[in-house]
Amino acid sequence: MKKDIGKKHWAIAEGYIPGWSHGVAPEMTSHETVCILNMTDHDADVEITIYFSNREPQGPYRLVVPARRTLHKRLNELHDPAPIPKETDYACTIDSNVPIVVQHTRLDSRQAENALITTMAFPGD
Amino acid sequence: MKKDIGKKHWAIAEGYIPGWSHGVAPEMTSHETVCILNMTDHDADVEITIYFSNREPQGPYRLVVPARRTLHKRLNELHDPAPIPKETDYACTIDSNVPIVVQHTRLDSRQAENALITTMAFPGD
Amino acid sequence: MKKDIGKKHWAIAEGYIPGWSHGVAPEMTSHETVCILNMTDHDADVEITIYFSNREPQGPYRLVVPARRTLHKRLNELHDPAPIPKETDYACTIDSNVPIVVQHTRLDSRQAENALITTMAFPGD
Amino acid sequence: MKKDIGKKHWAIAEGYIPGWSHGVAPEMTSHETVCILNMTDHDADVEITIYFSNREPQGPYRLVVPARRTLHKRLNELHDPAPIPKETDYACTIDSNVPIVVQHTRLDSRQAENALITTMAFPGD
Repeated sequence: MKKDIGKKHWAIAEGYIPGWSHGVAPEMTSHETVCILNMTDHDADVEITIYFSNREPQGPYRLVVPARRTLHKRLNELHDPAPIPKETDYACTIDSNVPIVVQHTRLDSRQAENALITTMAFPGD
Repeated sequence: MKKDIGKKHWAIAEGYIPGWSHGVAPEMTSHETVCILNMTDHDADVEITIYFSNREPQGPYRLVVPARRTLHKRLNELHDPAPIPKETDYACTIDSNVPIVVQHTRLDSRQAENALITTMAFPGD
Repeated sequence: MKKDIGKKHWAIAEGYIPGWSHGVAPEMTSHETVCILNMTDHDADVEITIYFSNREPQGPYRLVVPARRTLHKRLNELHDPAPIPKETDYACTIDSNVPIVVQHTRLDSRQAENALITTMAFPGD
Repeated sequence: MKKDIGKKHWAIAEGYIPGWSHGVAPEMTSHETVCILNMTDHDADVEITIYFSNREPQGPYRLVVPARRTLHKRLNELHDPAPIPKETDYACTIDSNVPIVVQHTRLDSRQAENALITTMAFPGD
């Protein structure tokens, strides 16, 4: 009764990489992660674009999520064409050639105890 | 393969600005933020309306989100036509003349360690 | 450019009222809240039904959300037909005669620092 | 005015069972939970499939959610065909023969104070 689900276009309006951390690295380092699930039998070519409050969008950042795999990518680790600055408001879009599911998580360990948030990204029609 | 996505009408049912804070300002000050992404090539004229439990709605608060930009606006900082009272249950709607994506976040630092929540706002048809 | 949005039928699959608390009452008492926004010009007659893992559903609990108002109702405070037991897995549905928007929040202060979660409820077709 | 709502196919892109815990067991043990609500008058036969970053999917894990019941299942407790490894990125899909509502929660108590996240799973068409 299994069925592939997903959308090709997604957006996350809230992006912010905290500037400092507490606790053991890398688990407790403040970070943001885009979690992508590709249920299909085709590799997903994914493009991430970063939007800012005061300059033109940056990207695309290119990732491949193989068929029947998930990829949890820390946005802190994107470097090409340029790293995402810390302590800066941003947003992002995720576009794929096959249907995927996208979820966003942040771990904020600026204070001694970590705080976590997550939400499904917003899917396009 | 990029595609603009979004909706013109959004709602957030849960609003509450905590009355006190711990930690360094402004990063750790308790606050609520509406994060708006405008992927389109047209500036977005946005109107926020605040709903209360015991009186008529207040607004609109007017914002502009330029083309291809994101705006993360602390609701604590809205002043015209009137500030949003702290420690008061409220809700809000966000209406735009072009499609946008809206996400809501609260940082609550009433206790020594901060707590964070986020969710996509609810999109209208 | 404002437009009423919402749905008449909503569900929350995750319900659990923590059994103990830290901090000042009532702000820091562990609780779950259903936040309802009624943008329409008609009062909303709302019925909440509670589902359990091992017995028949309980309800309906009846609430009124006046026209153009929001109601943030702590589920801990529902008493008729019966209180919701603490430390018990449950789920709930929210049905209304007019379109509403429903969001769920929990404050968990079982440990010294509070944790918060929120999500939009799931809307019916 | 009640109405059954739900979908038969759901996905969660973010899965990660923390490797350690603080606080009293079992309440404060780090865990991930899939919360399922079955509003219908038919028992739900549910299949969970786990996706990884570097090997083929694992499953299905079979559950029954009786008619008019909710089931909050800790993913840590799934054992057949094999446990889900800790400290490993994964994702999951949830398929049912009747409409259900699915929500995902994690309690992370790796540090002294617990952090909580929740989101509705992503529903298929």
